[in-house]
Amino acid sequence: MPLNHTHNPATKSWLAAANNHPDFPIQNLPYAVFKRSGSSEAFRGGIAIGDQVIDLAALSASGLLSGPAQSAANAASQSTLNDFMALGTTAWQSLRHAAFALLQSDASPATVTAVTACLVPQSAVEYALPTRIGDYTDFYTSIHHARNVGRIARPDAAPLTPNFQWIPIAYHGRASSIVISGTPFRRPMGQMPSAPGATTPIYGTCARLDYELELGVFIGTANAQGAPIPLDQAEDHIFGLCLLNDWSARDIQFWEMAPLGPFLGKNFCTSISPWIVTAEALAPFRLPFTRPADEPQPLDYLDGASNRASGTLDIRLDVHLQSAQQRQAGQGATRVSHTSFKHQYWTAAQMVAQHTVGGCNLQSGDLFGTGTISGPDAGEEGAIIERTKGGREPLTLASGEQRAFLHDGDTVVLSGWCEKPGAARIGFGECRGEVLPAQA
Amino acid sequence: MPLNHTHNPATKSWLAAANNHPDFPIQNLPYAVFKRSGSSEAFRGGIAIGDQVIDLAALSASGLLSGPAQSAANAASQSTLNDFMALGTTAWQSLRHAAFALLQSDASPATVTAVTACLVPQSAVEYALPTRIGDYTDFYTSIHHARNVGRIARPDAAPLTPNFQWIPIAYHGRASSIVISGTPFRRPMGQMPSAPGATTPIYGTCARLDYELELGVFIGTANAQGAPIPLDQAEDHIFGLCLLNDWSARDIQFWEMAPLGPFLGKNFCTSISPWIVTAEALAPFRLPFTRPADEPQPLDYLDGASNRASGTLDIRLDVHLQSAQQRQAGQGATRVSHTSFKHQYWTAAQMVAQHTVGGCNLQSGDLFGTGTISGPDAGEEGAIIERTKGGREPLTLASGEQRAFLHDGDTVVLSGWCEKPGAARIGFGECRGEVLPAQA
Repeated sequence: MPLNHTHNPATKSWLAAANNHPDFPIQNLPYAVFKRSGSSEAFRGGIAIGDQVIDLAALSASGLLSGPAQSAANAASQSTLNDFMALGTTAWQSLRHAAFALLQSDASPATVTAVTACLVPQSAVEYALPTRIGDYTDFYTSIHHARNVGRIARPDAAPLTPNFQWIPIAYHGRASSIVISGTPFRRPMGQMPSAPGATTPIYGTCARLDYELELGVFIGTANAQGAPIPLDQAEDHIFGLCLLNDWSARDIQFWEMAPLGPFLGKNFCTSISPWIVTAEALAPFRLPFTRPADEPQPLDYLDGASNRASGTLDIRLDVHLQSAQQRQAGQGATRVSHTSFKHQYWTAAQMVAQHTVGGCNLQSGDLFGTGTISGPDAGEEGAIIERTKGGREPLTLASGEQRAFLHDGDTVVLSGWCEKPGAARIGFGECRGEVLPAQA
Repeated sequence: MPLNHTHNPATKSWLAAANNHPDFPIQNLPYAVFKRSGSSEAFRGGIAIGDQVIDLAALSASGLLSGPAQSAANAASQSTLNDFMALGTTAWQSLRHAAFALLQSDASPATVTAVTACLVPQSAVEYALPTRIGDYTDFYTSIHHARNVGRIARPDAAPLTPNFQWIPIAYHGRASSIVISGTPFRRPMGQMPSAPGATTPIYGTCARLDYELELGVFIGTANAQGAPIPLDQAEDHIFGLCLLNDWSARDIQFWEMAPLGPFLGKNFCTSISPWIVTAEALAPFRLPFTRPADEPQPLDYLDGASNRASGTLDIRLDVHLQSAQQRQAGQGATRVSHTSFKHQYWTAAQMVAQHTVGGCNLQSGDLFGTGTISGPDAGEEGAIIERTKGGREPLTLASGEQRAFLHDGDTVVLSGWCEKPGAARIGFGECRGEVLPAQA
């Protein structure tokens, strides 16, 4: 995706709070579904600008838009963004560019007044899932995560399975239990081995509860069943990205997952951030996709010029953990991981090409998880099981508390942003979730 | 579920075609979503009786119903049955009993005239998926299938993983690619080993295409996230069962599935029958759930009096295969398997209890596959890979053709029914699918 005027870092907005905002300057303009907190309003689409939300239902009714941008805003005024995402890249770009023009510092006083009437403070809203997620697929595309977890889960075998360097591996996840950031969840009960390595189980409370730092990829335009999406067209099917926490019950997961994969170890809850940063906004932060010469090169259907040129995204990511004790004492959270999506072994476009190569149909509003994002170095692990080496080396919070796995009352906050010289910094906001005690 | 007057095998209908119908006598009354073939009508719910469909939109508007049955018929008049299924057992029973009363041989002439006006011949209709399937879960609950396939997929390991006898194992499947019986599908392309046992892959056409004989279980009433469904309440959440063919690309599947389970090997297509036989209609064919004393007994949360008393269902199942040559010559299909669901290691209620034990929320209209249904004896294998011992012992069709795996142009037809002395035979109709050549 070539850069255009919406990527110019010098552009300012008449909304002062947007300028130099760490997440939501005029160069970002991500989408969410929102309403005023506690109100009986209908949920509808919105665009973040600074500390405000542009109400797309209000904007659609304002008369400020016309043509494709008006049609797009109308579609985005619904309680889910599925229909808007189905419109495709031209429509997505029309609305983003129209919003950009309305928010630029050289907008007329009449425009400023009219747009201001469409703004709602972010502090006054609540969010819903941005789409009706038809199917949710979770990939497994960090070679560092795969090696770290492979050593723990299968200590007697090679950490990587033979397919890892050939396939962006994935499994189908649970759509119904995906929740919006801020929703707490109960620690799961379930079946787990009676002792480490045992071949008989007990029923009990998950003792090895984990987070997984991931990005979510929202599918925009669909493909028909039986009609694969070629790699070089894959980017056009990607609407945008969000933050995703694939909460995991490791004791339940490792007992159940042979031979058919994770199930109850994952499906009790998955959290996503409300804001979807568009593929267009992310364009300045693209990097070449490379594969060292001594590693397997992708098969032809997973290889292509556009992916080689710019398939990788440099998205910086943090994980913070705040215990109940820290929260009650008014202490901040402790950063427990920092990495970048650029280390991932496979790109989002390769995920789309792989998912559809056998004819599987993606639908507008479907969600992919990228798989846990772990970098090559210590401190870049995207899950606590890696960070603590299977729980054997607990980490220490700023409060002095130790954590091998998550405790009840712990809150995990994911955040993400992009920055580099010559581009405006843009961010994802946060994805937050709290562990509640298991049901009595 | 206790037996009631709708199970009386002596009851006849004024619709002559219903009496002694192998699938759809008055004791069955299964649900589908249909419209007149090729028409611009809206899809709506229907009930099978003999060779006819009762149009539930017409019945709802007829004035023949009242009270809960009227409300239920109104819900079932929509283009999916999700809202109807959400109403719960009392509503489901009300509508089925009302239809039974209207169809009984002692109905008044006025009733017969009015109901006849709501009938559409099955030969004149087409079907759609009966629900908007939010999530599809595929179980793995036949110990005979697990042993047969384990020997082929992991020849150097024990055929059963240690968890099989403790957990109704499952994985999440793909909802978007589920199709209604009669829909053909393309043989998938994908990645597979370059030779048997190789650790490098090629891209190519699936050469080991298989069917899997399964039943589908439709979830009626939902549970909230974080609120497990106890085993003794699980039956109340099950609306009914259909036939399900979990088409499988074995070469793609076995290459991709370690460690996260089947994905592209399954998600190109899953076929289901249009008719859902209700849990109430199946009540006469329940059997005790037993576990031999020398095998692990279920943990408490998977064990209970009602499941022990009647958790097993004796549903007879056939697989027929018809080659293109047979079809062109006007020859019938060859039966390649015959078994019963009664051999399954886990019951449908145990699947519900297991699925929700960690807090996962089921939604009305969700679908489970039972996993391949294979019985203990030769000829009872529910997949061709078992039937042919991994392709090494091809089966011979009535035409003399041999099959190690499925060929292009092959049609697979699943059928199912229940029969026993003292009960009316009821059936599921069929689930049919044809293999089209891979995309050029």
